Amino acid sequence: MTIVTLLTDFGLQDAYVGVMKGVIWGIAPDVQIADLTHDIPPQDVLQGALALARAVPYFPAGTIHVAVVDPGVGTSRRPLAARLGDHFFVSPDNGLCSLVLTEVEAHGEPVHFIHLNQPQYWLPQVSSSFHARDIFAPVAAHLANGVPLEALGSFIDDPVRLELPQPMRMESGWHAQVIHIDRFGNLATNLRREHLPARVVPVIRLKGREIRGLVEAYGARPPGELVGMFDSSGFLAVAVVNGDAARLLRVQVGDAVEVLLYPAAG
Amino acid sequence: MTIVTLLTDFGLQDAYVGVMKGVIWGIAPDVQIADLTHDIPPQDVLQGALALARAVPYFPAGTIHVAVVDPGVGTSRRPLAARLGDHFFVSPDNGLCSLVLTEVEAHGEPVHFIHLNQPQYWLPQVSSSFHARDIFAPVAAHLANGVPLEALGSFIDDPVRLELPQPMRMESGWHAQVIHIDRFGNLATNLRREHLPARVVPVIRLKGREIRGLVEAYGARPPGELVGMFDSSGFLAVAVVNGDAARLLRVQVGDAVEVLLYPAAG
Amino acid sequence: MTIVTLLTDFGLQDAYVGVMKGVIWGIAPDVQIADLTHDIPPQDVLQGALALARAVPYFPAGTIHVAVVDPGVGTSRRPLAARLGDHFFVSPDNGLCSLVLTEVEAHGEPVHFIHLNQPQYWLPQVSSSFHARDIFAPVAAHLANGVPLEALGSFIDDPVRLELPQPMRMESGWHAQVIHIDRFGNLATNLRREHLPARVVPVIRLKGREIRGLVEAYGARPPGELVGMFDSSGFLAVAVVNGDAARLLRVQVGDAVEVLLYPAAG
Repeated sequence: MTIVTLLTDFGLQDAYVGVMKGVIWGIAPDVQIADLTHDIPPQDVLQGALALARAVPYFPAGTIHVAVVDPGVGTSRRPLAARLGDHFFVSPDNGLCSLVLTEVEAHGEPVHFIHLNQPQYWLPQVSSSFHARDIFAPVAAHLANGVPLEALGSFIDDPVRLELPQPMRMESGWHAQVIHIDRFGNLATNLRREHLPARVVPVIRLKGREIRGLVEAYGARPPGELVGMFDSSGFLAVAVVNGDAARLLRVQVGDAVEVLLYPAAG
Repeated sequence: MTIVTLLTDFGLQDAYVGVMKGVIWGIAPDVQIADLTHDIPPQDVLQGALALARAVPYFPAGTIHVAVVDPGVGTSRRPLAARLGDHFFVSPDNGLCSLVLTEVEAHGEPVHFIHLNQPQYWLPQVSSSFHARDIFAPVAAHLANGVPLEALGSFIDDPVRLELPQPMRMESGWHAQVIHIDRFGNLATNLRREHLPARVVPVIRLKGREIRGLVEAYGARPPGELVGMFDSSGFLAVAVVNGDAARLLRVQVGDAVEVLLYPAAG
Repeated sequence: MTIVTLLTDFGLQDAYVGVMKGVIWGIAPDVQIADLTHDIPPQDVLQGALALARAVPYFPAGTIHVAVVDPGVGTSRRPLAARLGDHFFVSPDNGLCSLVLTEVEAHGEPVHFIHLNQPQYWLPQVSSSFHARDIFAPVAAHLANGVPLEALGSFIDDPVRLELPQPMRMESGWHAQVIHIDRFGNLATNLRREHLPARVVPVIRLKGREIRGLVEAYGARPPGELVGMFDSSGFLAVAVVNGDAARLLRVQVGDAVEVLLYPAAG
């Protein structure tokens, strides 16, 4: 049974997401639909791209991901479908799939982007503000029904790309930043496991606080303690054990984090 | 595979909605269940009716909609099932289905209301505060299993009806009001496309601000600009491009909106 | 079709829950997945246990419940699976299943706990902070596929147990407390129907307010009135008709509630 995932900034207070499911099941009654999240901050394409890239590896091959954070809806920005590795994507052309794309390219896997321009696979009436319902949901359902990607539009090779801000290498370590804050107030940085040498004890500095060394698990330290660790996606993260680091330190996405690899004595 | 939709004011912080799914799948294991929304403001039947009416047209014929915003639960208000057009509804008798009903009547489609009074289709124990679990969910599941509507109770022809506030025609245009605010802070009014003549450039006034003309898409204007447009359900809406009009203008549901069709010079 | 339920404190702003569904459907493509709630307050195992115990009775025999509120993730706390009565559970060993267990024991139904220690049923890589994805979701999916409970690990008989605070019997009645506040601001206490004699009119005192007698339904009294009743799970509850008792009375979980059974005259 094919899986369709949904990721949007629509929230759950309106029936926008429910309506997408009605459209999908009206065309492809058997698909399983998994909500990734609908709480991407409004219009924040990069946060959407990051959430998508973290979720995709845990879905089976052939999953169809519908990702819609779409400040350009109704303008000339293109609607896209794509095959990236062994997953499918349906999305506006604004970089939402960029971080998955980078990963797939790094592994030399197949990459195909399609400009959706075959309205017979859309709803008969297309509004100017809800392409998730009128274009992306029906296209995903037709893909699930076996319509080949290339029937849905024309190949393109210039999709919009976005990048996460990259950490900067300094003499003393890394100048990083907070790229995501989750429900627990845990702070994910853009520094990954591969940025840190194996035997060095890093010192993390942010908001005037300093954390020496990393823990293996939150529960390894007493409640309330500020700790550093690699999170479940491999990003260096800062957390308060059983607490909320974002609130404690008043951190926002984009705030600076210094990671010292060879700290001076004293 | 039959689709059942759920719309309530239960929120998601408790397992109320999950329990409804347990009851439904316990009786009808194969149905697809789509949450429309569970964030209707508590006891706000009219907002529930509006969300339901906007969502229904995007579901296939035969879908069963369970809608429960139910301030009268446990009192003598009747539990209902209905066939409206080619959709089914299960709901307390308080007007939740009114806006769908009006639409269906306007198209001359079939209308049948049933007072649910056959407890063999309910859970064995019926509480006085959770009929969604004890009556409406099991009835929906039995409907999905093929139990005919008329087996579930007795036909009635006097369901409670609610109406959206209607815009008033003035000499200069329309006196309308805000009927819904969505997650993005977009303001939907009760004025529809058919209220406005095709060739006139409307002027929208609310909260001391004035918007001249309508845009085709949010993205047609720069971020931060206040714009008017028809939303994806055909209601005249006011939005801030990439922003939140409700917060900017401090608007609430019920606030007045003037739409001038022949504005005086100057 | 097997049902899997999910109950966590992960919230819905990230794709944590969606990822669990990807893992489950990747292994067991046909299961139905019902979200119970993901808004358990972070690390609040007892609130999770309570929500689970209230939901379980409404799911059919054979349902697999994945419950993850897991402050000890990555430490030596054991991952568990269990059969309690005719339901299955997958959870950290921290008491999340305690209230279901107490119920099942009271009915003399089967109880089997397994320490999960067979990594062939987990994801190949296990993080130290997301066992819901790496251990619990795949184990639930293998259970749904028919892997027997005893294949997943070793039997144990000492799972961690938690208890709800119990009401205290006083000469004049009960000293109880608020154990749960729902979306409507309704206050559930730890006093159950069986604690109150059938013919006595109780007087409820909390936060300086007094409620004489119980109502059968919220709608039996005018909006704004403070009422007492048994809620849909049999707990004595205090509510404001069409209002929010928690906000009105500034009540929190743990606050004291006196219930007088033989109130003095006057």
